Amino acid sequence: MGAEQPETIAAIVAAHRAGTLTPAHTIARAYQRIRDYNDPAVFISLREEKDAVAEAEKLAARADAASLPLYGVPVAVKDNIDALGFATTAACPAFSYTPAHDSTAVARLRAAGAIIIGKTNLDQFATGLVGVRSPYGIPRNSIREDLIPGGSSSGSAVAVGAGLVPLSLGTDTAGSGRVPAMLNNIVGLKPSLGMISNTGLVPACRTLDCISVFALTVDDAALALSVMAGPDPTDPFSRDRPLGAITPLPPSLRLGVPRNGQLIFFGDKKAETAYADALKRWTALGATLVEFDLEPFYETARLLYEGPWVAERYLVIKDLLASAPDAIHPVTREITAAGARLTAADTFSALYRLQGLRWIAERTFADIDALVLPTAPTAYTTAQVLANPIELNSRLGTYTNFVNLLDLCGLALPASLRADGVPFGITLLAPAGRDAMLASIGRVFHADTRLSLGAKGTAQAPLAPLTANTGDEIPVAVVGAHLSGMALNGELTALNGKLIEATKTAPDYKLYALKTTPPKPGLLRVATGTGAAIELEIWSLSAAAFGKFVNAIPAPMAIGTLRLADGRSVKGFLVEPEVLGDARDITAFGGWRKYMTEGAKA
Amino acid sequence: MGAEQPETIAAIVAAHRAGTLTPAHTIARAYQRIRDYNDPAVFISLREEKDAVAEAEKLAARADAASLPLYGVPVAVKDNIDALGFATTAACPAFSYTPAHDSTAVARLRAAGAIIIGKTNLDQFATGLVGVRSPYGIPRNSIREDLIPGGSSSGSAVAVGAGLVPLSLGTDTAGSGRVPAMLNNIVGLKPSLGMISNTGLVPACRTLDCISVFALTVDDAALALSVMAGPDPTDPFSRDRPLGAITPLPPSLRLGVPRNGQLIFFGDKKAETAYADALKRWTALGATLVEFDLEPFYETARLLYEGPWVAERYLVIKDLLASAPDAIHPVTREITAAGARLTAADTFSALYRLQGLRWIAERTFADIDALVLPTAPTAYTTAQVLANPIELNSRLGTYTNFVNLLDLCGLALPASLRADGVPFGITLLAPAGRDAMLASIGRVFHADTRLSLGAKGTAQAPLAPLTANTGDEIPVAVVGAHLSGMALNGELTALNGKLIEATKTAPDYKLYALKTTPPKPGLLRVATGTGAAIELEIWSLSAAAFGKFVNAIPAPMAIGTLRLADGRSVKGFLVEPEVLGDARDITAFGGWRKYMTEGAKA
Repeated sequence: MGAEQPETIAAIVAAHRAGTLTPAHTIARAYQRIRDYNDPAVFISLREEKDAVAEAEKLAARADAASLPLYGVPVAVKDNIDALGFATTAACPAFSYTPAHDSTAVARLRAAGAIIIGKTNLDQFATGLVGVRSPYGIPRNSIREDLIPGGSSSGSAVAVGAGLVPLSLGTDTAGSGRVPAMLNNIVGLKPSLGMISNTGLVPACRTLDCISVFALTVDDAALALSVMAGPDPTDPFSRDRPLGAITPLPPSLRLGVPRNGQLIFFGDKKAETAYADALKRWTALGATLVEFDLEPFYETARLLYEGPWVAERYLVIKDLLASAPDAIHPVTREITAAGARLTAADTFSALYRLQGLRWIAERTFADIDALVLPTAPTAYTTAQVLANPIELNSRLGTYTNFVNLLDLCGLALPASLRADGVPFGITLLAPAGRDAMLASIGRVFHADTRLSLGAKGTAQAPLAPLTANTGDEIPVAVVGAHLSGMALNGELTALNGKLIEATKTAPDYKLYALKTTPPKPGLLRVATGTGAAIELEIWSLSAAAFGKFVNAIPAPMAIGTLRLADGRSVKGFLVEPEVLGDARDITAFGGWRKYMTEGAKA
Repeated sequence: MGAEQPETIAAIVAAHRAGTLTPAHTIARAYQRIRDYNDPAVFISLREEKDAVAEAEKLAARADAASLPLYGVPVAVKDNIDALGFATTAACPAFSYTPAHDSTAVARLRAAGAIIIGKTNLDQFATGLVGVRSPYGIPRNSIREDLIPGGSSSGSAVAVGAGLVPLSLGTDTAGSGRVPAMLNNIVGLKPSLGMISNTGLVPACRTLDCISVFALTVDDAALALSVMAGPDPTDPFSRDRPLGAITPLPPSLRLGVPRNGQLIFFGDKKAETAYADALKRWTALGATLVEFDLEPFYETARLLYEGPWVAERYLVIKDLLASAPDAIHPVTREITAAGARLTAADTFSALYRLQGLRWIAERTFADIDALVLPTAPTAYTTAQVLANPIELNSRLGTYTNFVNLLDLCGLALPASLRADGVPFGITLLAPAGRDAMLASIGRVFHADTRLSLGAKGTAQAPLAPLTANTGDEIPVAVVGAHLSGMALNGELTALNGKLIEATKTAPDYKLYALKTTPPKPGLLRVATGTGAAIELEIWSLSAAAFGKFVNAIPAPMAIGTLRLADGRSVKGFLVEPEVLGDARDITAFGGWRKYMTEGAKA
């Protein structure tokens, strides 16, 4: 099949649905690639190929197979997440156990048609950002062999970067789902806390952990998230957060960049330049860059490692530390044992300070849609990290450590391939619950880079057209004083409304100029063929904002359902006909804006 | 002025506004009553009378005085809350300091026209539910002298119960704002965490503390809360939670009562009977009682005292414990010093368990509007508590200790005066943010008891009529398939909609039977005098629920503004006139329900 082989989830599922490729073939291809890649450190355990192929064949025989969002997609799972049929080791043989159930995330992937083929290597107990702290070896970086793979989700990131699978699960407590994404030129989606259930996950810090997604494109990652997201009665930390829909790039995107002098690259000029280039790309895409103070975020990061959260890691392996300390990687043991010495008073003091930092972070986002930061300040070789394991690891977390403490969601994106062959990436960050917004803007950035995907040189396909809005956001059509720049437009922006598109109604409406202050038009649906197409704008509001907006609309305006020129329906303004007795019919102007500039003077 | 003296905030402010009483007179009366009550243990510090009177005179001279919601109301403040002009002692002379600012709560009270007259006694560092743990003496219970006053907000509760002031501030970490309310036959409003800023409060457990309100009536307490509520940039634990409006008693109120055998009264049969009587009153008021499992709530309470939160108390007085341990009340010292021995691992373990218990509590409220519990299981005399200070204190917290850990809001209400002269009370509990709902139902219960207010025998005035809805809830009028019991009513109940009232439109509408499935009517406004009054129901939805509701309404229905028979306006259903060509005019039936039972067959 040569260069046309489908590599992304979208392409693979489309091929399975079209029948141009069978799931069994896709699975067999994954195993062939694993053999060809020939790195025993990527997977800790791999399923028998014939079992996985048999599952793919069984799946393809199902009547509903084509409706499954991940129909026949091979998936690798980090080995601190339970998947039936595999031991869970957390990269510590002495800790290994055989799970009795799938983790909720894996169960939801399987229900969506995914096929789990193996469990991947990690920094032991997910402690580390380097990928070198494992008794199962060091996975080879998929882009440049001498580099660390990144961690702690080392095997999962390499598996996607090297094209072994199009989707893998990582976990992320302080950057484990983002740093290795950058180092392997792939997308790392770190959802809001609680968005994906943690049931069946070996905890690192239970209050900060989340399961993350590696994929070649943002759309692939967002699809996987949508399959796994949602509350889970077996995980009290899971939350019922609406995921929201992927939307077009908003016309007035505001992105936060650190104040002059606050960025740290540890002397890596190429990374510094790559970051500046990424910002230029955002500007070219129409974003406004807004400076913010990074210092409180750095303070939060220091709190993570100087504060009490390491006691959470200690709780996980307390028994093993007591019974078989030598079974633990020496670096991991040293870090984790410190957790035993912290007090409750230390903990509450840190929680107080964190609450203050959260408040500052919240204010930062009052005026900014998302932060744009380097995913990591630089990249290191395996040899460098082995020589200085704790300090270099710590440096890699410069821009990731604070994120979960502040309950932000993050999206790590490839940004460029440096002249020295080292991949550089940026991470978008936003308050919890805004995962879909990050994906909406991140997909446009990634497409604009025209970078090939992962390590295999696969070109990016054009971005898929957006499907109908299915999230919490409600689109509302405005035809008069709420149009951009007009008298009441501020009501929409005050409610965080976003302009989605400008279009027209079906040709079945009449527009009237009402004698109101400020002047407003009234839109009335009339018998098919007796009206005209009227210009409108569609804005998007959250459900609560839409409720408040509708509640504030005075008579004779009403909110009903408008038919658009292209056949879609959308909520929008209508007028009560009782007031139209002496109102001027301005249908011929085709819209309020034209009437206000030309007709209102007449 | 005899028996007609205004005692409640509502009556006092009305008299000040009407000019039948001056604020200076009200302040002087408070001081006279303090002298008459003659208990030096109520106040730790009292302002000079002449200063307070001068402030009242200055206030009355202000042009905007009458517009102030607490115009000239004398207020007592628990002495762990900063108020300029007073030392803050937390009932520990060695801890005492002179604050440089008002606490945010006190500043907001003053801005609303309140006059602070003194600082009240408390169980030292707000540790206790009894009111006997203070070097400033034991305030006399205002109802029965031999009883404890309750604590820790002992002085504040007695000051309101005895009629010294109509409003006081307490604090509440584990029941300190509720237990003393019951023991003094007054209302104790414990808001949701973060609803009132804690800036200027001596912490007990910073993650659980809140400032609470004592008043004679629910409406008074709710008014005081509305004045103080709102986010505060200086307290990162404060939250931006809309307070909501006081509404009529919902017709389908569901109240949770513990399963058979789960209640504990420590052998107090009179309390047990009083609780059963209170439940009968709720049933007579139309509420449905629903059994729930109290055990997870008890487990939460055990977590409070066996868990790490005492380390928060330790943090507050750590320095004093080291430098001058003898300056601390021996019971308080013993309890608090234990906080030093807890570990970070203990803390996280408890936080994990708490998260599970929160999840259970959340599920409990899925089907229940509020829990109804005894405020305390029994009452003790001062002699009894002095003989057994820790165990009896602990018993008093049976139904209060778990509340802040679960982030519930609470409203302690007088329920009856037992034959032995001991006041009995109930507490309503609901998830955070539902403070206004508790007040809405609690005011009706309290009025129904016809209990006199506090200790002075003042009769309750009739409940004030409700003012217009100003909260987050949006009322929506339905005229057809969404009416109670009809085909689409489930859409409202699924969104937690509550029926508020049944009424009619102004006589300016026509109603049509549309040819839809299910059958729906269309309401159209016509020229004044050419239509009829159409029956409708008003339902209340949150802004987000209203937004979703409107978004789901198909053409030709729209949501506009309806005029009601009494002149009010409300959002409600209208129809697009374009579809009415062949629709039957059913205006003569006066409403959809009558048409469906009589006219639809014709």
